[in-house]
Amino acid sequence: MKYVFGADIGGTTIKIGFFNENGELLGTAEIPTRTEDGGKYVLPDTSEAILRILRENGIEKCDVLGIGVGVPGPVLEDGTVNKCVNLGWGVFSVTETVESLTGIPCKAGNDANVAALGEMWKGGGSGYKSLVVVTLGTGVGGGVIINGEMIYGKGGAAGEIGHIPVTEPEEAIGICGCGKRGCLEQYVSANGIANVSSLYINEHPDEETSLRELSILTCKDVFDAAKAGDRVACKMVDTFGRTLGRALAAVGCVVDVEAFVIGGGVSKAGSIVTDMVSKYYREYAFHASADAEFTLATLGNNAGIYGGAYMVLKYQSLLENIQS
Amino acid sequence: MKYVFGADIGGTTIKIGFFNENGELLGTAEIPTRTEDGGKYVLPDTSEAILRILRENGIEKCDVLGIGVGVPGPVLEDGTVNKCVNLGWGVFSVTETVESLTGIPCKAGNDANVAALGEMWKGGGSGYKSLVVVTLGTGVGGGVIINGEMIYGKGGAAGEIGHIPVTEPEEAIGICGCGKRGCLEQYVSANGIANVSSLYINEHPDEETSLRELSILTCKDVFDAAKAGDRVACKMVDTFGRTLGRALAAVGCVVDVEAFVIGGGVSKAGSIVTDMVSKYYREYAFHASADAEFTLATLGNNAGIYGGAYMVLKYQSLLENIQS
Repeated sequence: MKYVFGADIGGTTIKIGFFNENGELLGTAEIPTRTEDGGKYVLPDTSEAILRILRENGIEKCDVLGIGVGVPGPVLEDGTVNKCVNLGWGVFSVTETVESLTGIPCKAGNDANVAALGEMWKGGGSGYKSLVVVTLGTGVGGGVIINGEMIYGKGGAAGEIGHIPVTEPEEAIGICGCGKRGCLEQYVSANGIANVSSLYINEHPDEETSLRELSILTCKDVFDAAKAGDRVACKMVDTFGRTLGRALAAVGCVVDVEAFVIGGGVSKAGSIVTDMVSKYYREYAFHASADAEFTLATLGNNAGIYGGAYMVLKYQSLLENIQS
Repeated sequence: MKYVFGADIGGTTIKIGFFNENGELLGTAEIPTRTEDGGKYVLPDTSEAILRILRENGIEKCDVLGIGVGVPGPVLEDGTVNKCVNLGWGVFSVTETVESLTGIPCKAGNDANVAALGEMWKGGGSGYKSLVVVTLGTGVGGGVIINGEMIYGKGGAAGEIGHIPVTEPEEAIGICGCGKRGCLEQYVSANGIANVSSLYINEHPDEETSLRELSILTCKDVFDAAKAGDRVACKMVDTFGRTLGRALAAVGCVVDVEAFVIGGGVSKAGSIVTDMVSKYYREYAFHASADAEFTLATLGNNAGIYGGAYMVLKYQSLLENIQS
């Protein structure tokens, strides 16, 4: 039996998944992300954790097909990370670094892109070969997969769905983490939905809503109130659906995928999310791409480790096809 | 010596290019498009014209590597056209039809996508492997190429840049050819620029402009007047640049290409087009994709025949790689 690792490097924790060559998850490990000193401990810590798992399970390095790593920044197709603000990283080769630390082959990608591969392989996107995975969390990430291949982009920025400009800059909404204004992320991320709703409630003091009583308004509050029939909350969910559906209609005009898979914290609200987004998607989409499917992501925080393992297994099977 | 054909099927004429295997254009032919009877003569006429060129040049079919055909409608990766309103076509296999009519292998694609391949191969996109070609003509077409491969899309609708929703529906602008409102094409095609400018002039009777004297306002008039310093015309060109630049910034968030190549009638205005569009692209683009290049298409009406020939030569070289 051969083995594979998927590592999902986040700003606070690093999650490692240990798989066999059939893609079965045998175990996971989590270690804190040490971002001090320009993030120089991150890959050594990750590598050490992987080597420890091998020792504990009595597995030889030669039985490991590879390590697939997702990092929270743009990654080029050759494995070079193009700055990672959260980790303090500049520009260097993630794959070469991990290979020299472990002696095991490595593949790397942007975390949202790698998570998208995971969802395609074992999650809400399984059965599709062309799909866009949209992750609605604190921010909005995305991954574009065409014929089973992740699109990296020339600067590692393919799938940066969250930074699609969706409005002319609005003073009240403020500045996006990317430095611009009017990004999709500012309206449909968990934070964005909460902000937009708070603003609306303050600007409409006459409208009755259960949300007004809350001292801190979260995205979950908005979806819960909408499910309970609160009119203002329903309006906010409708606006969310329109904004995201319209942006994805633009994405459909570019890549015309089979499916959109929606994940991240916001997607925990369930089918109300896909129902709303698909409703407006179909309203704004070009007719030939209007029948795309909408599904919920199913792997949660494990999408990244699955995607990492998939990158290795896919590359391995390509190699075998070429050799045979 | 082996030979290749590229055929660009338009609503009024069919253009055929005759190339040698080195990609040199040896000659072209043009025949009218007979759209009567559900367009049933279109492919027989095209095939007959190709066979005539072979006879006239004393070339055997076995010396022809293939025919690459662009058609004005969505085409799936297997060569199936998914309705072609201009030609009266329903759903059928373009490649199988041409192959049975000629006995020569055929590849097919959407005309704008095929033209994009042509521009990549021998035109304004040469040197780039990932690019989006935007054709600003009567309507707006597009083609998305990633790592040298055209993206077809599940319904043949990838690259339908012209139908990106860019505004909430505006009554004055009317309905797009696709049946929706608010499409990019309604603002930045040659017709769109002329319409938007006419509306602006009528709505602002106090603003002086040389354009007001014209009985019929064309896109060319607007660009000519802008180059001559007319303030209203400059404003219209600026609005055009902002609308297209912002839409392409959204495209950049999805596929992060090396270059945008701008062609079609509007691009004849020259570098003012790429200057304006790139200026606003950089304003709205996500930082990691903001340095994309902007170039003008150079092949004009020949882009489609070059792209057709390229599809065949590329497929052929793949076959040879597999066999060797």
